Amino acid sequence: MTYLTKLVCSQCNKGFDHRTLQSICTSCKKPLLAVYDLKIAKLAIDKNNLSKRSPDLWRYREILPVIDEKNIVSLGEGFTPVIPLIKLSQKICFPNLWVKDESQIPTGSFKARGLSVAVSKAVELGVRRVAIPSAGNAAGALAAYAARGGLECFIFMPKDVPDMNFIESQITGANVNLVDGLISDCGKEVAEGTEEMGWFDMSTLKEPYRIEGKKTMGLEIAEQFDWELPDVIIYPTGGGTGLIGMWKAFSELQELGWITSKKPRMISVQSSGCDPITRAFIEIKEESEFFENATTIASGLRVPKAFGDFLILKILRESNGLAISVTDEEILESMRELAHEEGIFACPEGAATWAALKRLKELSAIDPMEQIVLLNTGSGMKYPEIVPKEI
Amino acid sequence: MTYLTKLVCSQCNKGFDHRTLQSICTSCKKPLLAVYDLKIAKLAIDKNNLSKRSPDLWRYREILPVIDEKNIVSLGEGFTPVIPLIKLSQKICFPNLWVKDESQIPTGSFKARGLSVAVSKAVELGVRRVAIPSAGNAAGALAAYAARGGLECFIFMPKDVPDMNFIESQITGANVNLVDGLISDCGKEVAEGTEEMGWFDMSTLKEPYRIEGKKTMGLEIAEQFDWELPDVIIYPTGGGTGLIGMWKAFSELQELGWITSKKPRMISVQSSGCDPITRAFIEIKEESEFFENATTIASGLRVPKAFGDFLILKILRESNGLAISVTDEEILESMRELAHEEGIFACPEGAATWAALKRLKELSAIDPMEQIVLLNTGSGMKYPEIVPKEI
Repeated sequence: MTYLTKLVCSQCNKGFDHRTLQSICTSCKKPLLAVYDLKIAKLAIDKNNLSKRSPDLWRYREILPVIDEKNIVSLGEGFTPVIPLIKLSQKICFPNLWVKDESQIPTGSFKARGLSVAVSKAVELGVRRVAIPSAGNAAGALAAYAARGGLECFIFMPKDVPDMNFIESQITGANVNLVDGLISDCGKEVAEGTEEMGWFDMSTLKEPYRIEGKKTMGLEIAEQFDWELPDVIIYPTGGGTGLIGMWKAFSELQELGWITSKKPRMISVQSSGCDPITRAFIEIKEESEFFENATTIASGLRVPKAFGDFLILKILRESNGLAISVTDEEILESMRELAHEEGIFACPEGAATWAALKRLKELSAIDPMEQIVLLNTGSGMKYPEIVPKEI
Repeated sequence: MTYLTKLVCSQCNKGFDHRTLQSICTSCKKPLLAVYDLKIAKLAIDKNNLSKRSPDLWRYREILPVIDEKNIVSLGEGFTPVIPLIKLSQKICFPNLWVKDESQIPTGSFKARGLSVAVSKAVELGVRRVAIPSAGNAAGALAAYAARGGLECFIFMPKDVPDMNFIESQITGANVNLVDGLISDCGKEVAEGTEEMGWFDMSTLKEPYRIEGKKTMGLEIAEQFDWELPDVIIYPTGGGTGLIGMWKAFSELQELGWITSKKPRMISVQSSGCDPITRAFIEIKEESEFFENATTIASGLRVPKAFGDFLILKILRESNGLAISVTDEEILESMRELAHEEGIFACPEGAATWAALKRLKELSAIDPMEQIVLLNTGSGMKYPEIVPKEI
């Protein structure tokens, strides 16, 4: 079923056994990445046969990490639509504009992808109890998949997350802990509790398989664009796992010979209330600084320092991309515009990509004829608190 | 593209021209249904080629009513997953149990199907202004598709609908009117305003194409079960268009020769706080009585008298099905169970189907080996008000 061969450190390249539970590199403490035997996979899989498979992320099972399909914990996630923007593309004079719409997925957030795959792999490796620090949506997704997979689940999230993140976690029976702080403080609580509580830490990139789930967004975009990648992808960066994952997907697709086109320019957008990646990118740093006093209505972007920041920054440069910030006011106005003109009720993080595109047009940073994909990472329905009643 | 030939009255069989705007039968005031030339379609379409098409409801375009595909107003709706229930199927000792999960769809509700198709057809026929009476979710769906299709939109819904129905309608720029009453009162306001406001009434079954969108649930179930229909479908009946639509789909599939299996038994579930169909079924009536003082947490089931009640009742009998009611307490407990055991955060209407199945088991009304599909019509995330914080 899978061509997974090992895990390697994203920094020092040291190899690790995928048949046992792994977290981060034991030497340099950086994330581990899954490696597949793509030479053999290339001979074994014909991409033209994919269309016969179910429209969910498990259609790419050979390059996902689960060994025995009986361990898959699925709610039918993935293969979300790529929706053309019609009126907004005319308004901005960019005729080739799409939204990859991750609102149409279990738990209404792209976090479902990473956690379907990570929970499946945890089940395969015999884990019984999981914990997660979350800005909100990852909590809801872990809670759902842990419930389905029969794992005991401990959630740590800021006490001021959107109400829905609390409700969706609690209704599944997860043990929910609201923390007076940010996701970074939640991460500390999970790390500190590991020894006493015996849970497996599902923090993104401290666990090697959430990124494998996220990479399926890149696989799907490739397939949905008939294996000719778009020119630009605009992505709202919190932890950045989706961006790293999509880039990994494109590299794997090149090795498989399924794509021949150039990889897209990857553009990161953050809220100016928490934009460590934008700052590090502008200052040409290899890592970001911890962002003090982070505050933004886009709760998923409230990540003061991403564990994979060095990977995000490397990809932005390697892809000839960039990082940009937008204000919360621009995000709210973009939510309104996407709903009003296109009927898409995006989450604030997703709406930030449209706000970013408007800025990039002003900066003449994108050729109007390029093919552009905005990543809407989830549903605006999870954020009733931030929608002003008058708009 | 389409094999649509005409509309016929569901009661008197009188024919109507599909190339002009139609509402109900001008003679007997009953719903009109779309008729396709299935003999020709049978020769032209090979069902085995469907897998190459996009996983949305427009894959069945030949038996949908839009003539010119440029009129399609789509947000990528449809082809939602059929999720096996694993722990609950063991708990209830029914091994063949699935949920058709309509939460993974634009606007988080199956109403998107009917309104994508109806708005597309309205655009095709030159409509510029639409109005709808709604129990909540149809409002949000019409608002989204009308925004995308560039139609002016007027919403009438009870003032105590879930907050999210108000928010999702307003953010698209729809003109939202909250009514001190039920959907039946809203329906009167839409009907009374038609002359003065010049809007087209999108009330379900008073407009002939929402049912065509809803029938795609039946087409998908057939395809997802490899053209061998399940034995039983349990459906939460508000207006009942989904049930009538699926039954129409199964009949069309038989005519196309795509299915040879028996059609499923159709089981209707309502809340005991508003169960006109259950009462009419038990009393062996051809029509339901207006249900006075309707009240239930499942706002989508708060329909005191469905316009298509006689069709619903006919189908329940023809299919050898039945109608059953459950209490709001059972619905809440079923929401908890679906989330807790399966990771599915269903809407209350969807959860009612699981509550119904438990009752049907007690009544020995279903053979445990039968294949059973529960229709979860939308996402629980749209109903935070009703989820007790302690569960």
